[in-house]
Amino acid sequence: MKNMTLWMLALAAAAGVRAGEVVSVADCGARANDQSDSTPAVRAALEKCRATRATKLVFPPGRYDFWPDLAQEKYCYISNNDEGLKRIVFPLLGTENLEIDGQGARFVFHGQVCPFVLEHARNITLKNFSIDWARTFHSEAQVLGSCADGLDVEFSEAFPYNIRNGVLRFTDGKPDGAPQTTVKGAEVEYPYGSLLEFDVQKRETAFQAHDYWARGGLAVQALGGRKVRLLMPKLQATPGNIMVFGAATREFPAFTVSDSAGIAFHGVDIFHCGGMGVIAQRSRDIELDHVRVTPAPGSGRIVSITADATHFVNCAGKIAMHDCLFENQKDDATNIHGIYVRVMSRVAPDAVLVKLVHPQQAGFDFIRPGMKLELVHGPSMVTLGEATVKAVERLNKEFSRVVLAAPLPAELVEGDALASAEAYPEVRIERCIIRNNRARGILLGSRAKMVIEDNLFHVPGAAILFEGDARFWYEQAGVRDVVIRRNRFENCNFGVWGNACIQVGSGIAKECRAASRYNRGIVIEDNVFRVFDPRLINAYSVDGLVFRNNKIEKTTDYPPQHSEAQPFVIVDCDHVSLPAE
Amino acid sequence: MKNMTLWMLALAAAAGVRAGEVVSVADCGARANDQSDSTPAVRAALEKCRATRATKLVFPPGRYDFWPDLAQEKYCYISNNDEGLKRIVFPLLGTENLEIDGQGARFVFHGQVCPFVLEHARNITLKNFSIDWARTFHSEAQVLGSCADGLDVEFSEAFPYNIRNGVLRFTDGKPDGAPQTTVKGAEVEYPYGSLLEFDVQKRETAFQAHDYWARGGLAVQALGGRKVRLLMPKLQATPGNIMVFGAATREFPAFTVSDSAGIAFHGVDIFHCGGMGVIAQRSRDIELDHVRVTPAPGSGRIVSITADATHFVNCAGKIAMHDCLFENQKDDATNIHGIYVRVMSRVAPDAVLVKLVHPQQAGFDFIRPGMKLELVHGPSMVTLGEATVKAVERLNKEFSRVVLAAPLPAELVEGDALASAEAYPEVRIERCIIRNNRARGILLGSRAKMVIEDNLFHVPGAAILFEGDARFWYEQAGVRDVVIRRNRFENCNFGVWGNACIQVGSGIAKECRAASRYNRGIVIEDNVFRVFDPRLINAYSVDGLVFRNNKIEKTTDYPPQHSEAQPFVIVDCDHVSLPAE
Repeated sequence: MKNMTLWMLALAAAAGVRAGEVVSVADCGARANDQSDSTPAVRAALEKCRATRATKLVFPPGRYDFWPDLAQEKYCYISNNDEGLKRIVFPLLGTENLEIDGQGARFVFHGQVCPFVLEHARNITLKNFSIDWARTFHSEAQVLGSCADGLDVEFSEAFPYNIRNGVLRFTDGKPDGAPQTTVKGAEVEYPYGSLLEFDVQKRETAFQAHDYWARGGLAVQALGGRKVRLLMPKLQATPGNIMVFGAATREFPAFTVSDSAGIAFHGVDIFHCGGMGVIAQRSRDIELDHVRVTPAPGSGRIVSITADATHFVNCAGKIAMHDCLFENQKDDATNIHGIYVRVMSRVAPDAVLVKLVHPQQAGFDFIRPGMKLELVHGPSMVTLGEATVKAVERLNKEFSRVVLAAPLPAELVEGDALASAEAYPEVRIERCIIRNNRARGILLGSRAKMVIEDNLFHVPGAAILFEGDARFWYEQAGVRDVVIRRNRFENCNFGVWGNACIQVGSGIAKECRAASRYNRGIVIEDNVFRVFDPRLINAYSVDGLVFRNNKIEKTTDYPPQHSEAQPFVIVDCDHVSLPAE
Repeated sequence: MKNMTLWMLALAAAAGVRAGEVVSVADCGARANDQSDSTPAVRAALEKCRATRATKLVFPPGRYDFWPDLAQEKYCYISNNDEGLKRIVFPLLGTENLEIDGQGARFVFHGQVCPFVLEHARNITLKNFSIDWARTFHSEAQVLGSCADGLDVEFSEAFPYNIRNGVLRFTDGKPDGAPQTTVKGAEVEYPYGSLLEFDVQKRETAFQAHDYWARGGLAVQALGGRKVRLLMPKLQATPGNIMVFGAATREFPAFTVSDSAGIAFHGVDIFHCGGMGVIAQRSRDIELDHVRVTPAPGSGRIVSITADATHFVNCAGKIAMHDCLFENQKDDATNIHGIYVRVMSRVAPDAVLVKLVHPQQAGFDFIRPGMKLELVHGPSMVTLGEATVKAVERLNKEFSRVVLAAPLPAELVEGDALASAEAYPEVRIERCIIRNNRARGILLGSRAKMVIEDNLFHVPGAAILFEGDARFWYEQAGVRDVVIRRNRFENCNFGVWGNACIQVGSGIAKECRAASRYNRGIVIEDNVFRVFDPRLINAYSVDGLVFRNNKIEKTTDYPPQHSEAQPFVIVDCDHVSLPAE
């Protein structure tokens, strides 16, 4: 709130730049390195770019701070993150042909704010800046030791907390001083939903660590200083390690890209955000080049961002990620999939009531008149046929009534699903390092060509997962043409989120797997697998699986596990080619 | 979800009714008494009313149940309640000339849903039905006794709860069976924010009981059965009494009336809702006749609704409430006021940046070009002058930039305030019973004529409060012409929310009170005050206060308190007429 009058200066500055010219935020009132709020300056600078059709917005080097107070606001539905009324520092809504060059600038955000939202944007390049937060949405504590009542931990000053009525709550450390009322607490809270132990030496999730659910809070006991006893007797962790309190929500992704095309990221560091790093939905042609998701250097944090590094939903065109680093985030490095809506009832021979079931898919309105839908048997995800949409009536963010151009097959019943049968994205993931994060490496679910080459994987779950289901996550997947080539799989599966380096984890009902060939055309070649756990491939319901010319090295880098397991568990698959024993 | 196909029937039924005719929900698919979801039928019936210009919608007698699933959705900013994306069973948006006659029907809502939202509605009558919920937004427990660690309580089956990680959480009692994830808990929660003891014999807030803040939850210990120890050592309560866990939010008022005119309620019972009973904002001409806010008969509950019975913000025309019962709600019976925006900075000689400060006023956009504003000195609320609005630019739900038609006075600075200087509502409150609720009776803040006649007050705080401030609640008040006549004040102030039966509680800074005459023209006559506490009037900064021909009777119905206090404490007032000692 320090520079509210700057905003007027910024508006006054919005004058007389010729199309194609460069706008500097400095000319719109932004001041580097003085901890003033640069949000109004960005707002003014973007206005200026729009008004003058400037093609480039630049930041003089330095640190820029952003608060939500004077930011633009918009209700956003963000798949696999949390919907809501967002304050947005860089609202690129309908923006076209703009490059934002940070020139090495460091962007530091404060509180409940979304850095970038792109909607109906085209031809946007974002480059050369980093994103961080003054107070992270997750919290970290050092494990001191355990006792019969639970686990003792200690928080650094970077993670303000308090204990009210015996319950641990994280805050921004700034009580507002005003009295509490029936409608208002004493400070801004940072709610947590789960706990996960990280190994302080290896800087990764601890060996075989799993999530402890803590949604709604945890009873604790103050031990003096910044030491706290977590009264959760089953909670286990190694002294010296870091216990991470995961953010309960995903409201503040770093980059949200919706209904956009031609979006490029070059040299962008995402040190923190309260959600996914890059979430793109219903968009096409997205490139990530030298994007790093990693804890801020010098921050002492072990966790980078609070959810997946990247995530692509119902995208098309080309998705390219190369020379990226995705590490220490609280979920997968990427997940590329579509969305199934559930058939709730047939309301007419040619009409169904459908629901977006997963709460974080609410508002994901992808069904449009004229589009082609895939009709899917829910338990098996076997395609029953296709249909063309005649009309859609949206009842609310969950329910829609869809009228098709022709009567639907009789076998389509409640519990079945619909998804887009149109464009799927071609994907290339090359020369990326994916490591130390919670859960899996990459989840592949596009039906166009996918090439995964020259990457390094070191993750506690499966490095590569073929997911997809119409029962819980409602994520459409089912690959057709995947090449996994020249990657290095380095001691994966040291955690609880997988059963092989490369795994099919589709939610196909067990009794349907024999009849389903949901994933097809997977070639795995010329990779190096360094493994302490022998399980390489676990697959079912696949048609076409080739494993050739891969190098397998055994390691003793972790305690042995599943030593007697088979490297290849292949069930209900056709056209499988494995190396001779 | 039981009757989704009914919805199609309902749509099919929406045909051929002549203007002025009566629509029955039964013809649109609603079925009384079978616990089916009548929401789609209401949606269809309202469509039919609109399409056919029907003037009356009727319900055959019986119970109707409503779920949010198929309800219409809209983002609503509701003053003094919580904003959000609401599911609405009766969305009267732009509706005109309609009577909804429940004919005695009982409406039972399930979960997170708003019964009625009226926006830009005109000439609407709502009559002869009751509103209740299957699971209340608050919870109640019987007090068993206390020990050094805290208080032991027992919950009935009506208030499902669980204890997770040592923390008490209220639920809908229906775990969904699906696994928890980093983004999803195991059930729907009913968060609580405070605790308040009610006297089980007197069915009112316990003598001198006060709120215990519990936002974020309470550490507890299971004692077996449905008994729980609340680990809050300072918590005191009498065994046998009821401890009420107040809802943390106010998201689901029964009736929200925005920007509407000519709204009448006749014979409506509000047994429960998750917010205020009737909240009207920027609306005119509202009548409540025989409206009852009371715990559902036979429910065994001690609390009716979770916030104020009624509340009117920036309203105009006439507000009439007569023959109403407002009891056992978790806040005041009514509060009639305007809203101040805070001046954050002067951005030009004729322009200010202003903020809606109180979070529950966010989005309350009342400033329009051409309107007259009052310029107010913040600490004293003394009017500095008036100004006409030239332009408003809304930055987001909190901040706007306001340009005035002329330069502003130099003395208007940061911390001062603006409010509407236009219409205020004439208010008549007659023959109402106001009792047993948390806090105060009625808060009077209109600058038009206010008549309060023939009511009964028995409340734990002040029966009548003249509030208003530009520092915390930002509620514009300052009466000009109030008659308080022939009311009965029955043992008020048995709780902690007042210092006299009739009280000025304006947030005028102490050092400004001598110079301020914020409230004016208050006549108190022909009333009966039955008091166990001698404090009748406490006033400051009033010009014109007449107390005449009132009967004062002492009682011993409660333990004596403030026995030595003066009945009249009058400071910094002019033109005061009190009875001779």
